[in-house]
Order: sequence, then C-alpha cells, then structure tokens
Amino acid sequence: MCRFLCYKGRNLLLADLLYRPANSLIRQSYHALDRPEPLNGDGFGVGWYQRQITSTPCALTSTMPAWSNQNLRRLSYHVKSNCFFAHVRAASPGMRVSEMNCHPFQFGRFLWMHNGSISDFHRIKRRLRASLPDAIYESIQGTTDSEHAFAVFLNTLGDIERNCSATDMAKALIQTIEQLERWTAEAGPAAPSYYNFAVTDGESIAAVRYASDPKVEPASLYCSVFGRYVCDEGVAKLLECDVSERSVIISSEQLTPDTTHWHRVPPNNLVLVHPDLTIEGMELDVSRIGTRVHIPPISSAPRLAIKVDYTDHHEPAAVQDAVAATADRSIQDVD
Amino acid sequence: MCRFLCYKGRNLLLADLLYRPANSLIRQSYHALDRPEPLNGDGFGVGWYQRQITSTPCALTSTMPAWSNQNLRRLSYHVKSNCFFAHVRAASPGMRVSEMNCHPFQFGRFLWMHNGSISDFHRIKRRLRASLPDAIYESIQGTTDSEHAFAVFLNTLGDIERNCSATDMAKALIQTIEQLERWTAEAGPAAPSYYNFAVTDGESIAAVRYASDPKVEPASLYCSVFGRYVCDEGVAKLLECDVSERSVIISSEQLTPDTTHWHRVPPNNLVLVHPDLTIEGMELDVSRIGTRVHIPPISSAPRLAIKVDYTDHHEPAAVQDAVAATADRSIQDVD
Amino acid sequence: MCRFLCYKGRNLLLADLLYRPANSLIRQSYHALDRPEPLNGDGFGVGWYQRQITSTPCALTSTMPAWSNQNLRRLSYHVKSNCFFAHVRAASPGMRVSEMNCHPFQFGRFLWMHNGSISDFHRIKRRLRASLPDAIYESIQGTTDSEHAFAVFLNTLGDIERNCSATDMAKALIQTIEQLERWTAEAGPAAPSYYNFAVTDGESIAAVRYASDPKVEPASLYCSVFGRYVCDEGVAKLLECDVSERSVIISSEQLTPDTTHWHRVPPNNLVLVHPDLTIEGMELDVSRIGTRVHIPPISSAPRLAIKVDYTDHHEPAAVQDAVAATADRSIQDVD
Amino acid sequence: MCRFLCYKGRNLLLADLLYRPANSLIRQSYHALDRPEPLNGDGFGVGWYQRQITSTPCALTSTMPAWSNQNLRRLSYHVKSNCFFAHVRAASPGMRVSEMNCHPFQFGRFLWMHNGSISDFHRIKRRLRASLPDAIYESIQGTTDSEHAFAVFLNTLGDIERNCSATDMAKALIQTIEQLERWTAEAGPAAPSYYNFAVTDGESIAAVRYASDPKVEPASLYCSVFGRYVCDEGVAKLLECDVSERSVIISSEQLTPDTTHWHRVPPNNLVLVHPDLTIEGMELDVSRIGTRVHIPPISSAPRLAIKVDYTDHHEPAAVQDAVAATADRSIQDVD
Repeated sequence: MCRFLCYKGRNLLLADLLYRPANSLIRQSYHALDRPEPLNGDGFGVGWYQRQITSTPCALTSTMPAWSNQNLRRLSYHVKSNCFFAHVRAASPGMRVSEMNCHPFQFGRFLWMHNGSISDFHRIKRRLRASLPDAIYESIQGTTDSEHAFAVFLNTLGDIERNCSATDMAKALIQTIEQLERWTAEAGPAAPSYYNFAVTDGESIAAVRYASDPKVEPASLYCSVFGRYVCDEGVAKLLECDVSERSVIISSEQLTPDTTHWHRVPPNNLVLVHPDLTIEGMELDVSRIGTRVHIPPISSAPRLAIKVDYTDHHEPAAVQDAVAATADRSIQDVD
Repeated sequence: MCRFLCYKGRNLLLADLLYRPANSLIRQSYHALDRPEPLNGDGFGVGWYQRQITSTPCALTSTMPAWSNQNLRRLSYHVKSNCFFAHVRAASPGMRVSEMNCHPFQFGRFLWMHNGSISDFHRIKRRLRASLPDAIYESIQGTTDSEHAFAVFLNTLGDIERNCSATDMAKALIQTIEQLERWTAEAGPAAPSYYNFAVTDGESIAAVRYASDPKVEPASLYCSVFGRYVCDEGVAKLLECDVSERSVIISSEQLTPDTTHWHRVPPNNLVLVHPDLTIEGMELDVSRIGTRVHIPPISSAPRLAIKVDYTDHHEPAAVQDAVAATADRSIQDVD
Repeated sequence: MCRFLCYKGRNLLLADLLYRPANSLIRQSYHALDRPEPLNGDGFGVGWYQRQITSTPCALTSTMPAWSNQNLRRLSYHVKSNCFFAHVRAASPGMRVSEMNCHPFQFGRFLWMHNGSISDFHRIKRRLRASLPDAIYESIQGTTDSEHAFAVFLNTLGDIERNCSATDMAKALIQTIEQLERWTAEAGPAAPSYYNFAVTDGESIAAVRYASDPKVEPASLYCSVFGRYVCDEGVAKLLECDVSERSVIISSEQLTPDTTHWHRVPPNNLVLVHPDLTIEGMELDVSRIGTRVHIPPISSAPRLAIKVDYTDHHEPAAVQDAVAATADRSIQDVD
Repeated sequence: MCRFLCYKGRNLLLADLLYRPANSLIRQSYHALDRPEPLNGDGFGVGWYQRQITSTPCALTSTMPAWSNQNLRRLSYHVKSNCFFAHVRAASPGMRVSEMNCHPFQFGRFLWMHNGSISDFHRIKRRLRASLPDAIYESIQGTTDSEHAFAVFLNTLGDIERNCSATDMAKALIQTIEQLERWTAEAGPAAPSYYNFAVTDGESIAAVRYASDPKVEPASLYCSVFGRYVCDEGVAKLLECDVSERSVIISSEQLTPDTTHWHRVPPNNLVLVHPDLTIEGMELDVSRIGTRVHIPPISSAPRLAIKVDYTDHHEPAAVQDAVAATADRSIQDVD
C-alpha cells in the first residue's frame, strides 16, 4: 500500500519530517503502524521545491529501501524546502520494483503520489492510455496504476503550463477518480479501489482519502494543522505562530503520538492547502462517483479547517508503545 | 540478525527451498517468525556448488531486498545444486548495506554465513586484522564482523587448499569462537555475542547455534534430517529414501509448520554434515569458551543424529496461522 | 547501439565467450571496435537454456556496466549451457537505463536481443501497442523500441506454445521488420532504422543484419561457423570435430583477430541456425521491405554456409593492435 | 584514473559545471579528452556546502555511471552552492566498484577526492592503518587507496574540529604525500604513484598535481581563474566582476576549448584557494619528497595567481573537434 507525506510551510529541513519524529516516514518504511503490513521497502522517493531556483520540483527516487539509504539520509539533513513530498513504497502484487515505478511522479511543476491501488488495473490500462494526448502518453516511464492515474489527472487539468488554483486541482483530482471509477465499472465487477492521492504544484496541495466502496475503509490519512512545526528530539510540536510561519503536514500516519495536533482525515474526504496556508476540507459523494459523471460542488464558503473525526483516533499510548517496542533501524552516520 | 539456510543432498532446484515452502527463506526476508523483528531486507546472497564445473562455489549477492529481486527469482528456478547456502540480511546498527557486506562470503572452496553479531566488534577489529596473514587480510572487502570472523576461521583452518574433513571444520569453527571470545573478554565487559555461523566446502557443512552468555538464548536454528526432501505446492515432505538420496537442511527457521521433520538445534550446539550425509551433533562447553583456551572433544563415537530438544518447538498451528495471515509478497513472473 | 552475442553448440562455460576471448563481449562493453562509439555501459543481460531443468531460459539483467559486475563474472565461470544470449547496452538517446530496458528480453521459451534503433519510434508506438493481444501487451515492462519489436514478433509468430522451426522464426522475424517498416513509412519520412535482431527458442536461432535504407550500413554482425569452439588463453580456436560437437557463434564483433573463423554477415542478410547446428543464410530484399507487404522466399535449397563478404573484413593486425593498446578493465576476482 | 572538479565562488547551479559546458564533467565520464582511456564509468559522487544550513557538506555517491543517472541530473538542476566537489570514477584494477569507494569522501567538514593511484598500495595498507587513531580508523568504509590517503591527511591535520587556514591544509596535504612516499619507499622499489588530490573544508581548497617520479607526467589539472563564471549554451565565459563575485574552478580537464580562461597547472604544483577567493600556487620539491621528511616552504609573499605553463596547452581547435565529433550521451529529461 505505501505511506506518504506532504509538507507546506516555512522552509524546513527534510530530516525534520523524514527522520526525526518518533514515527517518521523512514520509520514507517519498516514499521508502519496504521496498516496490517508494516513494510514499505520497495523503494522511495522525495520531491521538493526551491522556487528561488526554478518552479519545477526536484524529484529523486530509488529502488532501495528508505531505511538504509545513505544518500537519502544525507540529503535530508542538507536540503530545506517550503514544500515537499516523500513516499515509501510497498509494491502491489505484480508491480515491478524499479526507479520508474517509484513515487513521487513529476511532470512539469507537478508532483503526484498514491497510496492504494486501482482494482484490476490491467482491465482499464489500454483504454486509459488511449485517452491521453501524445505529450502525456510519452511521459509515462513505468508500469504502475499510480503513474497512469497521474496522467489522467494531467489530462483532466488541461493546459499544465497555466497557473491553477487549489480548487482547480481539487476538481481535476475528483474528476480523475470519477473517470477511473467509470472505466472500472464498465469493465465489470471488481474489488474496491483505493485512491489516496496527493498532488501539488508547489503552491497548493490537494490530497484525498478515498475508497470506491463505502463499506471498506480507505487507507489512513492524517493532517497536522495550525502552528509552526518544530521537531525537538523526536517530539513534534506545533508552536503558536503567525499565519506566515504556519506549517501543514498531510501524512499517511501520525508522526508523533500527540493527539492534539494530528487530525484524522475522515473517509472519502479531500483536503486542500491553499497558497496562503489556509486549509479546506470537503466530503466526496461516494454514492455518485463511479456510477455516473458527477463533480461534487466545491464549497464556495469561507475556507474552514478540516472537519475532524475525533472518534477515529489512535490511542496515543498505543502509538507510543509501538514506537518504543521496536528498535531504531535507521542508519547512523559520521556527521 | 538475519536468516540463513544450508542445503546438502541430491541435486535440488534452489527455488524448492528459497521460494516454494510456506515459510521459505524469501518469505523470511519480510516475515521472519522466530525473531522479534520480522524484517531481513538489507540485501541477500546465495552460493552454490556444481562440482562437475569447478570446486569453487558461485556466490552472488545483492543489496536489494530478496523478496522483490527478479534475478534471484529467475535464477532459483533455473539452477540445481547438491549443496547451497542462502542468506537474507538484517544489517546490525552501524553496518552499511553494500554488496561487500552481504553473505555468504566466499574464499576459495569455502562459503560462510553468520546470523548474529559480535558485541562491540570495533574494540577487537584492529587486533583481529593484525592477526591475519596478508592473503586473508587482502581478501576482506567489507566491514562486517561476520566477514572478519570468516577470516579468523580461514586462518585457523590453516592451508585452505588442503582437503579437510567435517571434523576439521568443526574444530576450526570452535576455535574461531574461542578466539573471538578471548579478544572480546580482553577488551573488557561486553554484552553477549551471537555466533550462529555456517560454513561449507561443498563436501561437509558445520553450523553452530551459540551465544556467549549461557543466560541468553541464541538465535533460532533448525535441522531437517532423514528422507528425501520434496516440496509439493508449498508443503515440504521428507520421503523415505536410500541414504544416497537423503537431504539435509539447516535453517534459521522451520520452512513448514510440520513438526515431524524439523528438529530445533539446542542452544550452544554444533551440527556437522559429513560428505556421506550422516549428521553429527555436539554440545559446546559454554562455561569454558571465552574464559580460557579450550577445544571441546570432538566425539569419536559412531555418528548420531542430532539431539533434539522437543520441548522447544513452535506449535505447528501457530506457524500455519502466521503464514496464512500475511500476504504473499514474493514477485510473480511471466514464466 | 549495443553489442550482442549468441551461442549454440555443445555445453560451454559462459566465461569462454563473455570473458576469455581477446575481444570478449565484456571487453566490448568498454572498448567496442566496430562502431564509432566504443562504450556499451548502460547495463547488460544474459540468458541461457538448460533443457534438462526447464524449457524456459534464465534471463538475468542489470543496469550496472558489465565490465565491473562481480555477479556476472562469477556466474559466467559457473554456468554452462548449450545455448545462450548475451548483450551489453548503449541506450539510445531518450531511452532510460533500467533493468526492464535491458536485453535479452524473455517471453516463454524465447529470448530476443536488438542492436540498433527504430527511427522516431514514438510515432509508431501507440499503433504498435494497439495491435497486440492482451497477454503480449501486458508482458511489456519497459519502454524500449526493442522490447516492443519483440512483442510484434511474438504476435506474428502466433501460438507461442507450439514448437516452431527455424524457418518459422525467420519468417516471423522478416514479417516483424516489414510491419515496423510499414508503420514507420505511414508515419511519414524518417531517418533509417537499424534492425539487427536475434531471437531463439533454445533450439534454433535467427539473427538478422539489416538497415531500412540500402544506402547506409547496418551495424556489424559476425558468424563463427564450423568446428568446435575452444578458448585457450584468450585465443579462440575452432577445432575439427563431429557435427554433434559443432559450435555456432553469432556476435556483433569478431571475438578474436583470427580471419579464418569469423565471417562477416553481409548487409541485409539473415542467418538461421537449425537445431542440428546447420546454418542457413538468406538475403533480404530491401527494396521491397517497407514499401509494401512482402515476404522474401525462404530458400528451400540445401542448407548452405552463409555467404561471406571477404572484402569487408577487419585487418586482423588492426584488431590485434587495438586490443593490445587498451588496458584490460575487467575485474579480477579472488577465485 | 578518474576526473574531478572543484568549484568555489558565488552560488552556482551544479548543472552549470556538471552538465552544461561543452566538455562538462558528465561528458568526461564517457569521453574524457586528457587521458588515454576516455571512460570514467565506475560510479560518481558530488558534495556541496550550504553554510546557512550546516557546516558539513552533503556528499552523495552512486556506483552507476554518471552519464545516465537521472537523480544526479535532476539534483544538479536544483541545487546551488558556493563550494562543491564532483568526481567521476575509473576504478583502478582490483578496486571494487561500490558506493563506499566513490569520491568525494567526507569526514566532518572535509571533502576529499583523488585522481591517480598509490603504487602497490597493498604493501603499505596495514602500516598506514596502524598509524591511525580509532576515530579515523573506524570511519573508513571502503577499500581504496584514496580513502586511506584521506585518513592520513585527517590524522596529519590534527584536531579536525578546529578551523584551519588554506595554508594549514596545504601543509597537511604535502605531509600526507611525503608520508605515503616514505612508506612506499620503505616497502621497496615501486612504479610511480599519482597523487592528484583535492581537499576542502568549504572555506579553502587545496589541490595538487603530483607524480612521485619527476620523469613521468602527472594526471592533467586545470584552473580557471578570475572573473565570474557563466555558462551560456555550453560556452563558458569568465566575465569581468568584483572580487566578491569571482569564481574559481579546478578540474582535471578544461571544460571549454577556450584557452584564455583555463590555465594548466604545471606538474608537481599545488593550488590554494583562500576564503577570499585569492589563489596561490606553489611548486613542490619532488627530489626531496619520498626520500626524506621535508615540508617545502609555503610562500609568505603576497598571494599571486598561479604560474601558468603556456607551452603545455591543448590546441583549442583540437578540443573543439573532439567534442564535436562525439555524440552527446547525457540523458534528456522532461523538465
């Protein structure tokens, strides 16, 4: 299934999210807590923006497990960014481990990650590819459902050179899921598909927690809102701060056992992070997606904090215990 | 800690032990049962003998996890051997993941594997290296305690071109542990060292289950004795057969839940497999090793089957359940 | 462009062709002689048959350069086969270096290699893929023109489970080139395509030296015919022998400076190796291929040795000098 | 032998030196001009400083050839630094290709690269290692003479936490060569050693062009002095500028055919770059190094531009032709 992490805020050292928290993404590569299978060892990737250099992100990927990768570790302690994505992969059965199949996928200004799988993807693959214009078709390097879903998103978004708002991205993301569902439905009955996607252009982020069947639970997704993120000896804190110093973290798991800062995104909800770091949540209408073409109305109301499902939290003690009970396998370095 | 497997018997397809059993070594790379940490994803290696070609084994290693490695899978379905070693690695903290640090290590006719670690190895490393003749010193390519222990073994064995008996190998193995323990003791108090070693020259195998402190339990080790091994749809069977068709498997874990065929090697015992496939077990005198130089007497009695500690078995149902409860992550191939 | 090598004959150690000859394939990975660019460092692959184990070949690939690969070297000194393919890659511009893009490609019993490139492949890629049945479509893992050409070949051949003769393979190979040419022609004017392909099912081999424009020279191709191949301290010899002990080598370059044994395949010719090790050559009718559908008649005459273009040879001294003047970069091993 | 490049000046995109110049370092990975063997495909490394984040550099290495590495390419177009080192490796015979053997080597604030080899290094390896304190001894991860020479340098420099001047580094560098020469001499007659080393702490750079035998020519080394470096469509220019915007490039080869900006460092000379970007050259007394302990006097005179040997230049036309005659193999990317 994979685990991923999105960050937008002030400039932050990558290591402050990838290595330092108690349940850091690197730790999730070998000891994920929120899924039955704790292992995400089929490669990793990280992509970050430095707008003062260029508007396209730098996306690096590797087929090696994240936990032992010396280059990733060194890089994370030397690169700061105000917007980055990171992903540790658990390849779906039948999907090859290769650099081309590692997330985040990059195209122009965009980064894309997926935690989940499109059910019986091979049934819709040819039809999906046939729908793509040449430029996007040619950009596909790997074989994953995830990269193909990205291609559908890019095609849905239209002119990718044009600036787009967070709302544009949200619309395209929802239409992408609808399109994938429609093709899947037309190919006959299938098991549920899991569509936790995250996409960014470096300015806005859209992330969705979605399963095609309302009776199953989508993969977990958390959002850390408000305050300025700092990581002090493995303890994440969100300090009082100006809006301009605010941090937003969207990740497959809580990075720390703290329940105050981590909100579990409810099933079939979408989270939008706007360029000014305001956050918007919206619920997707599952009953309609996949049965006919339908774009749920994007709220035009004032932007609100995401609605939080407080009943759905980990017990903090349980997380703390799980973290404490397993050895730290991340590599030690000289510096 | 790692997991390993040794085979000696009639010609067998590598896949019959590495992939096909319910709890195959490849499965142990991501779901080991007999250790608290189930992950052995820091590379792998396999070495095999084909005496009709040459007396030196072919040892291949990779830093990629075994579970997703296409080359290992393909090879395992195309190579047969009457003697092979395989290993999946969980790097000790501070030990780098590199091809040079993957087991089995090879020198001349010999293959060597280790599951465990020498406590505070850095304290004895310089002294150990100083004790080696140039040829062995120069052969060391990596940084592990395991490869250095192999160097001590080779030096202890003497002329490595000379044919040696299983008993010669056992003596050298015990002396190696004694030497490592003596150096460790002289460096001051240390945590226990774990010395599950296996060594072969393609004719005989010696494997030991040993921890330097009698109060701690060494890493697990099993031995499958008597009969001809076949793997039929994931179910290992040991069929009645002539001695000449007999199979011996020594491995960190039972490959199947079946309690009839798998004997747990008792702590601080050594197993010898002779060229005629007879098996000999001997208990090491822990109280003496590490305190003063002492070679336990090698039994000159008729060769006997290894003494089995029947109280120490997995419940078969438990193994079966554990295997059933976790998804199969080994890659699927075209052929 | 790449360099490749095919072998069929009695059981031979892979190293006898890959490492030992003066101008071995491994040497060609860093010092190819017969092409302006001497470097073929974008990965490698080797595939071999052991019919006593299974009829499907074992194909291993790596993105590392062949010259320094320890696993390839060790394997080559421990595996014998009576039929094997090997390839060192120089990726065409725009083609990614990945394991999935390394040759030989394998499907069922077949191995496939390519030295060359399809001009403006992206123009025909979608049309080509649309022509494929699902089973073959789904088997494509990489992005190369070479693997896609293999898919066309498999589709042309029909039921791939059925045994086929060398002549069946030759027909399908020619039809594949015709099909690729037809699509390319329909996409508008293009630079010449280079179609040096080799294919085998472990029984027969078909290899072609072909460029779509009769005014350009196809990539080089040599054939070593008659006699039993031995490599004695880097000097290849073809000794008098029974037909049953005969060896056939088809390779992008002569492996030794010796002019007696190496015949240069003339441009736009196809070489067939039959299961009984007889060899057949045929000239392709370039003027017709690519302009309209046309299968050149397969000679029904008695099988003959390939026609040799004696005017087209390297000067042996030149090869010898070139080999002598450059350092040996192949790795040294302990054993 | 390898090729390397050092940069110090204003913030510069890595790609401006690694990819964009006509004879960029990446190009030298497959078409080096200034050495008989054009290939440097045994891995690469890059290390850079961003003092606003930390004083330790970020050093990334890979065993893949530099020319096809997607991660290196992407990184180079997204990272700016005012001080960086880069290296493409051609492994000496017998030296393994591994990440641990790739340059630049890093320890604390220091980066180290080597182009050359210590003759019969194995003869002095044990003695060298015995001379090292534990902290430096334990930091050695690979097996190269280059990394061991770095260890001698660090030991010679003394307290590596202490700030040191360019002159301190130069003294330690010369003493390192003397020490290596003394040990080599004591081990008996040997072929010449080649000691082109470069070292930096992010503030100063010391680079030396040196061969132990005055009758042989050391590996090439160039220095680009004065002006502000810009790379405009593959043409490097050094524009008039303030001292504060000045650039210094030290590299194994000229990056452009332009003779105005590239000065060939004379044999057995050392180049110092001070924190204020002034450059100092000094000639080493070859006759004395290696025979007895001797530190050539460091000039206390006003810092001068390096003495240039104008007789020793490439003909610019020749470089231009060589560059034009060979195809561009560096990978193309989407962005």
